[in-house]
Amino acid sequence: MNEFKLNFRLLEDSTFVTKLHVNQVRLNHDARFPWLILIPEIAELKELHDIPDEKQTIVHKEVNFCSAALQELTSADKMNVAALGNLVPQLHIHVIARKHNDNAWPQPVWSAGEAKPYGEEDLAELVNKLRQRLSN
Amino acid sequence: MNEFKLNFRLLEDSTFVTKLHVNQVRLNHDARFPWLILIPEIAELKELHDIPDEKQTIVHKEVNFCSAALQELTSADKMNVAALGNLVPQLHIHVIARKHNDNAWPQPVWSAGEAKPYGEEDLAELVNKLRQRLSN
Repeated sequence: MNEFKLNFRLLEDSTFVTKLHVNQVRLNHDARFPWLILIPEIAELKELHDIPDEKQTIVHKEVNFCSAALQELTSADKMNVAALGNLVPQLHIHVIARKHNDNAWPQPVWSAGEAKPYGEEDLAELVNKLRQRLSN
Repeated sequence: MNEFKLNFRLLEDSTFVTKLHVNQVRLNHDARFPWLILIPEIAELKELHDIPDEKQTIVHKEVNFCSAALQELTSADKMNVAALGNLVPQLHIHVIARKHNDNAWPQPVWSAGEAKPYGEEDLAELVNKLRQRLSN
């Protein structure tokens, strides 16, 4: 079995927030939506249904934890949770906070065109806030 | 607590396949993609993280069961699993079989325009096949 190594595209397009028991949590570089990406640190994983049985519960608990925390932090109207992976094969789970007045509502964020980069300070501030919130 | 009642839009846009322990499984009316929708039969549920603790494991087991079965049945290259709910607030989980040559690849299915209806016989045949597969 190979070791887990983060896909280079996830590495480039997001910033590390924290490591939970199984998932690495990252902030996606798109200032239009508060958008976490959770990557189970398990090698060669592509599908949710391929997560080993003994880690299924903890992965979903961590997704729920991040989803509830991000919703609270952003006062989001709806959370979008998705494992797609058509472009980046390494299993990763999107946890996206949606508002009725955001750039894509009510469409999925993927229909909304190009990502908008964060300013350096905004990114650092948000990552800090998330790190504190998700470390409790 | 109100009783569970299926959202009318889910009712109209999909056909009943089977009932598992917690989820009702339906086939979405879009012949472009083999596409199941799982609806936990729990009243007033909007977010994955709001599923009662004692039902979390079974919901995810059933999602995994359907995802693995649909991938096998359709020889799909990738499964897309998502809980969005921006248009239909009742919690429902999309389980979609994707192929490298399908109408939307590698974009999410929601970027691909209008659904294509099934012919009556094709729908009946696929629902039957799914019912058999998911009842084992």
